[in-house]
Amino acid sequence: MMYCMSVSHKKAPVTIRERFAFREEEKKEFMELLAGKESVNGIVVLCTCNRSEIYVSGTKQAIGELQRAIADYKNIRLEELLKYLNIYSGESAIGHLFKVACGFESMVLGEDEILGQVKEAYQLSKDQGTVDYEMNVLFHKAVTCAKRIKTDTNLSKTPLSIATLVANEVFHFQNGSDIKNVMVIGMTGKMGGTITKNILSKPGIVVTGTVRKHNSCLTVDVKSDRVKVVDYGDRYHYMKDMDIVISATLGPHYTVTCEELSKALEDGKKRLFIDVAVPVDMDPAIGAMEGLTLFDIDYFDTLSKNNTKIKLKELDRAKAIMEEDLDGAIKEMVFHPYIQRMDELKNAFSGKRLETLLYQIRDHVNSEDLKVVLRTLDGLQDWIKEG
Amino acid sequence: MMYCMSVSHKKAPVTIRERFAFREEEKKEFMELLAGKESVNGIVVLCTCNRSEIYVSGTKQAIGELQRAIADYKNIRLEELLKYLNIYSGESAIGHLFKVACGFESMVLGEDEILGQVKEAYQLSKDQGTVDYEMNVLFHKAVTCAKRIKTDTNLSKTPLSIATLVANEVFHFQNGSDIKNVMVIGMTGKMGGTITKNILSKPGIVVTGTVRKHNSCLTVDVKSDRVKVVDYGDRYHYMKDMDIVISATLGPHYTVTCEELSKALEDGKKRLFIDVAVPVDMDPAIGAMEGLTLFDIDYFDTLSKNNTKIKLKELDRAKAIMEEDLDGAIKEMVFHPYIQRMDELKNAFSGKRLETLLYQIRDHVNSEDLKVVLRTLDGLQDWIKEG
Repeated sequence: MMYCMSVSHKKAPVTIRERFAFREEEKKEFMELLAGKESVNGIVVLCTCNRSEIYVSGTKQAIGELQRAIADYKNIRLEELLKYLNIYSGESAIGHLFKVACGFESMVLGEDEILGQVKEAYQLSKDQGTVDYEMNVLFHKAVTCAKRIKTDTNLSKTPLSIATLVANEVFHFQNGSDIKNVMVIGMTGKMGGTITKNILSKPGIVVTGTVRKHNSCLTVDVKSDRVKVVDYGDRYHYMKDMDIVISATLGPHYTVTCEELSKALEDGKKRLFIDVAVPVDMDPAIGAMEGLTLFDIDYFDTLSKNNTKIKLKELDRAKAIMEEDLDGAIKEMVFHPYIQRMDELKNAFSGKRLETLLYQIRDHVNSEDLKVVLRTLDGLQDWIKEG
Repeated sequence: MMYCMSVSHKKAPVTIRERFAFREEEKKEFMELLAGKESVNGIVVLCTCNRSEIYVSGTKQAIGELQRAIADYKNIRLEELLKYLNIYSGESAIGHLFKVACGFESMVLGEDEILGQVKEAYQLSKDQGTVDYEMNVLFHKAVTCAKRIKTDTNLSKTPLSIATLVANEVFHFQNGSDIKNVMVIGMTGKMGGTITKNILSKPGIVVTGTVRKHNSCLTVDVKSDRVKVVDYGDRYHYMKDMDIVISATLGPHYTVTCEELSKALEDGKKRLFIDVAVPVDMDPAIGAMEGLTLFDIDYFDTLSKNNTKIKLKELDRAKAIMEEDLDGAIKEMVFHPYIQRMDELKNAFSGKRLETLLYQIRDHVNSEDLKVVLRTLDGLQDWIKEG
């Protein structure tokens, strides 16, 4: 039987989660320590910034052994520990593993970073030799299921946040060159900073961020040699070198006007202007200027709303996939002992007449179980014909 | 499949129930009429003062056929009819039949008069040749179950009403003779009348009831040649001939005093005095007089409360018995078609290896069904050893 002890963002604040974090060496040490217990057959330690989870397989004593060991290792009283824990066992532990691996337990629903983290945690245990048959099958199936959801649904490919949607527009913009020059007006603001980080996640993008002189106390929290900081007052001066201009200030005035822009840009080159400010930063008439495309906040709001609808549908599909694979994993666990008992079963039933067996079943099981058995018998007639 | 159409005290007032009552000849006529329909294989009509129920077995069309036929026969519009009906089908119809037969649907929970009525209704259909295999099995099993509850529990033997408890005291009283003389003071009252009816339900009891002269307009609604009516003022005169004296008036004064009683009774004979009035009708000191026993309303209240506790326990036992027998009946229905298909099934599975069959099952059913099948396989190993 597999068990899971979970300290997650659902029950424990970050200060507590930190206490249960494991560095690589600690993981190895703790796994070795626990694997030495008689009741424990397998152990996997999964640590992310949102959760510390320890999966163990073994006898009924394994979960108690784990709790005592972690209280001891992390120097915390058992009663204190129990306040922050969720304990899962058997099928609910398998279900939890699947949910975690598929991103259903993540803060951002369906995110797929967790998949890599689950794979790594499992691999570490495998390398350490602390996984048994049960854990091998279950982690393998959970990871396969998460990959299937990633491939077959658009759950993790459907962004809802404005910053990500803006970054996607930047990535898709074609200027015929390997390098895209992007100006971010208001880079020191919250939205400006997030957008900057997002667009820098792909190569080939160079950012020119504006700061206001009187705000020089604000430092730019994006550290990259692909970011250049210029004074807000000089923005039109740099604009001719830009492919994309993004504005995200909180101010009431236009940061980009048609008048100034027509002076600054005389080449008619194809450029993308993105205005995510409320009230608007860019004169809407910019969109009508030669070579220029303007996307405003309404455009991104609409994208985000559409994506929310898509995401909900994809979520249903993803859940259906998970339920199917989870059921398969549970079947594997349930069925496995019978493979080893096949000869014993064959001997027991050899030479017995079908009606003898069926009458015995009828006389001993309740009507619900009898229906399942008879329904299975019906199916079996077809399945053996086909297979 | 069996269906049940029920018009009962739960949904229809007595005026409506009366419209659906069937006289013996009507039952026969209606059964014959309905049995002629192609979709109908069997029909049983059950009529009591609290319910009219028609059970039919047959194809899916049978229940619609029944509703049209009864609307036609009873000259009622179908839409009007549907207001008062409960329709049960399949397992819920079987369950309903069991509940009705066992008295769980009766106004007085667990009463067993209904059992005789169910038996009679079934017997009539059997005599008419309008019951098929399914109805034969189900009615037989329902009646057997109700008998089992009657024999194995005290559900129907645990009275709660004061009138019944008083009657039981009268029945148990021994005076060494075949005849018991009982005086009922206040026989024209509600309680006095009910008690009188109850005690007259067994032979060997002769009642002397008192009425007041100025109330001569009140007629005694108990008709029996074992009841004699005397004037209230003469009660002490008749008391020496009595074995039991019951008083149940609404008046504020004693109907029996020690003083008058000691004048009237001089023989010291064993007598039972029962006072069920509030406030009390009999001087409590009567209980201390030679030969006399006095039971007052507190005595019967205590009996009734104890019986309520007993009845609740017996009800749980009765329900458990019913659930068991009901499940057996459902199993019989589910299993029956497979007896006829046994050769076909044998051919299908002959020569197939157990592991082939089990792998096919694993690959096609869900984990819940797989668990049932494997659990059944485990049991089967033991059952064939034993049987």
